[in-house]
Amino acid sequence: MKHKIFVVGMGPGKENMMTPQAMEVLEASDTIIGYPVYLNLLGEHFREKELLSTPMRQEVERCRMCFEEAGKGKTVSMICSGDAGIYGMASLMYEIGREYPEAELQVIPGITAANSGAAVLGAPLNHDFCVISLSDLLTPWERIEKRLAAAADGDFAIAIYNPSSHKRADYLKRACDILLDHGVEETRACGYVENIGREGTACEVCTIRELRDRTVNMFTTVFIGNSQSEIIDGKLITKRGYQV
Amino acid sequence: MKHKIFVVGMGPGKENMMTPQAMEVLEASDTIIGYPVYLNLLGEHFREKELLSTPMRQEVERCRMCFEEAGKGKTVSMICSGDAGIYGMASLMYEIGREYPEAELQVIPGITAANSGAAVLGAPLNHDFCVISLSDLLTPWERIEKRLAAAADGDFAIAIYNPSSHKRADYLKRACDILLDHGVEETRACGYVENIGREGTACEVCTIRELRDRTVNMFTTVFIGNSQSEIIDGKLITKRGYQV
Ligand SMILES: C[S@@+](CC[C@H](N)C(=O)[O-])C[C@H]1O[C@@H](n2cnc3c(N)ncnc32)[C@H](O)[C@@H]1O
Ligand SMILES: C[S@@+](CC[C@H](N)C(=O)[O-])C[C@H]1O[C@@H](n2cnc3c(N)ncnc32)[C@H](O)[C@@H]1O
Repeated sequence: MKHKIFVVGMGPGKENMMTPQAMEVLEASDTIIGYPVYLNLLGEHFREKELLSTPMRQEVERCRMCFEEAGKGKTVSMICSGDAGIYGMASLMYEIGREYPEAELQVIPGITAANSGAAVLGAPLNHDFCVISLSDLLTPWERIEKRLAAAADGDFAIAIYNPSSHKRADYLKRACDILLDHGVEETRACGYVENIGREGTACEVCTIRELRDRTVNMFTTVFIGNSQSEIIDGKLITKRGYQV
Repeated sequence: MKHKIFVVGMGPGKENMMTPQAMEVLEASDTIIGYPVYLNLLGEHFREKELLSTPMRQEVERCRMCFEEAGKGKTVSMICSGDAGIYGMASLMYEIGREYPEAELQVIPGITAANSGAAVLGAPLNHDFCVISLSDLLTPWERIEKRLAAAADGDFAIAIYNPSSHKRADYLKRACDILLDHGVEETRACGYVENIGREGTACEVCTIRELRDRTVNMFTTVFIGNSQSEIIDGKLITKRGYQV
């Protein structure tokens, strides 16, 4: 029998935003592996499980640990915040899984920040949209720039992940400038949400010109409307095109 | 006190993929309004609620019904499949809500088909991606074409919603041709999933050249990899760029 490993999206944070399916596989697991912050978000009743981690940045080692522990006969879950397949560990698990043919992977989806954040702001996506990360740890900045330009050219609404970090304090400003250079008007409706589904949820709506000069932290998801988006009573709304 | 209306994403279908938060607000509702197919997906215990609907295409009337019922003092939920803010009713509810200042809307996020379908195929997104609908009911085809071209130019992975309908049997073929015309190679790794989280879930992986000639139905979500995507052991994987 193959060793089963689950790659689990836990949603934005709150337990009532994690699916029962995710809860079931975590409960069926002997060992839960993940980035320490995510392990801490798990409810009390998971403290009796074997909880393992590796320091930040050691993603490859963390994935490998899953396969090693499963090889000992344990049922293992790798947890990710949001959805495991959106800038999460799902693809890396499959890549490393090639070395462990006796293991079988199953991805359990979760609510990603684009959806949970959108719900806080109103309906900023609701039509065709792009999701873009501003992190250049694994992606050359030129590629990020090219994608921002393409998103503007296609008049997509955009959800921006990893909008900031200590080393990249001006990346959101740079991203806004690229969008502005590609035809996005200065009054474009935008918004951002910090700590979605966690203590201290906060959101703001503004124009892209204002967004350009805002400071956001790494626990923030940023939304740029498309040319049809509007701020209605403090909510960011992208219309689908119904005749009202 | 304002009348409360919830706009609820129920996830792809199965009850264990709907969040406890969504379940709680449905349980707290007197009236649940939605497209008949979605009402039927709800569990037995919701049959005691007042369940209301309007025929297909009457989305504006369905939204208005929510505000009218809430005005009678009822707690109302509007349900949508997947996430209410992804080609769902969230934005239309806010638009119509302008006429009903005494109502207060809250969006409850759900797992959208891009995430639940991705979990079935492996990890087809996992990096920057676009979500594009091929439905031209509310969007001129030229705009859809422009977005497909932009997605190819930006080398985004793509999730395609509404890939087909009776009247639009060849739209997926047309979409593939546009991508191929914009530099996507014929061997690009793709996949599609039908009936995610419902009876009869089925998935396939293939190249875009093969996808071009496949027939899919309207309960299907299609995934186009980016230039780094690969089919590994029957799974569609888009790498994030870790050194393995
Ligand atoms: C490495 S990505 C992980 C994304 C995650 N897998 C998901 O699907 O939401 C980290 C980024 O996701 C966004 N994010 C994740 N959880 C968030 C939350 N609870 N509140 C706000 N943003 C969040 C932020 O943009 C953050 O910089
Ligand atoms: C009008 S959109 C609604 C999307 C929904 N709000 C969501 O977030 O998933 C309908 C399209 O979503 C996709 N879809 C929704 N539910 C699905 C499911 N259970 N299986 C496969 N595709 C689905 C299909 O592409 C379908 O044509």
